[in-house]
Amino acid sequence: MLPEQDTAARHRLKMQKRKAHQDAEVASKTIEKGLLIVHTGSGKGKSTAAFGLILRALGHDWRVGVVQFIKGVWDTGERRALERGFTDQLVWHAMGEGFTWETQDLERDKAAAEAAWAQAQRLLADPNLSLLVLDEINIALRYDYLDLEAVLAVLRARREGLHVVLTGRNAKPGLIEAADLVTEMTLVKHPFKSGVKAQAGIEF
Amino acid sequence: MLPEQDTAARHRLKMQKRKAHQDAEVASKTIEKGLLIVHTGSGKGKSTAAFGLILRALGHDWRVGVVQFIKGVWDTGERRALERGFTDQLVWHAMGEGFTWETQDLERDKAAAEAAWAQAQRLLADPNLSLLVLDEINIALRYDYLDLEAVLAVLRARREGLHVVLTGRNAKPGLIEAADLVTEMTLVKHPFKSGVKAQAGIEF
Repeated sequence: MLPEQDTAARHRLKMQKRKAHQDAEVASKTIEKGLLIVHTGSGKGKSTAAFGLILRALGHDWRVGVVQFIKGVWDTGERRALERGFTDQLVWHAMGEGFTWETQDLERDKAAAEAAWAQAQRLLADPNLSLLVLDEINIALRYDYLDLEAVLAVLRARREGLHVVLTGRNAKPGLIEAADLVTEMTLVKHPFKSGVKAQAGIEF
Repeated sequence: MLPEQDTAARHRLKMQKRKAHQDAEVASKTIEKGLLIVHTGSGKGKSTAAFGLILRALGHDWRVGVVQFIKGVWDTGERRALERGFTDQLVWHAMGEGFTWETQDLERDKAAAEAAWAQAQRLLADPNLSLLVLDEINIALRYDYLDLEAVLAVLRARREGLHVVLTGRNAKPGLIEAADLVTEMTLVKHPFKSGVKAQAGIEF
């Protein structure tokens, strides 16, 4: 056997084994249910990955709800893009009034968080939705603007097929405990550190 | 002063300080340039966050290119959704032939990676693009189907304003070194572990 034939043969054998392993793995998973998904960590991509999931869901002709607990100071490109093509599949509520250091008013922040959660509960009861994104709810939970146990009780009682995504840094341990799928976005390197500004299309 | 007034006043002061700090931070960042962005790690959300960035970019009326180095076995919801509303802003090439354990053919995998990179280079030369996503290119780099130094030389020579996103686990140290923005998606908890299968709309 020539050396390169040997390499190719060994590669094929290794990959055949891996494929058998993968196929067995996939076959062993049989449960289908709505997932409780958490995107947390101090890195980028928590909300962005949630918007990617929204896009995927829309491509499957699902109906999707979004409640933004913290409304950024910017009108986001994502929302503009989604509203261009999918208004009939999408219910979007931007409820927060800005970051907490923008309002500088604790009571107003609490009231905004409660109003957003009330809106989220209305969407949780909507039988047409397949995916609900509670964007930056972790911030409201972290500062105890909302009670975690009360929120979890409502989420646990939701329809079986409904997927819910909760985003924001500092997800509480009790939320991670209750979730099915948790990803931490970890900051490895950020351009702000070398003086690069927040740019349209990347940061917002 | 009543205790609740005291709390509100302290909160306001703390948030005023934080806002001053934030404003100074923002004002100190003045550089605008196309970023080299890497999404890596074994967690979910690497490609999904890239698709979220595509969505944001489309919302800003940018033109976007996508080269998929590993074509999944599924027709993704993201692509279907994006092609519904944005065909004129989007150039999409699904080049890979599947996962390496699907083809079981080293030479075919290498040829597919090289063809995808040739396509990526054509898009890098397109003056109309503002964002280029090289999805799962890290896999091709990891297995040395592509030479990292050759890829980095081409990326460094790109137009100044062009943002490039590279996704896939096991990003090479040299790529992280060269990048402006690196996020590691870390797996904290995955539903596969409790027997839940890959579900349409969530995994693909």
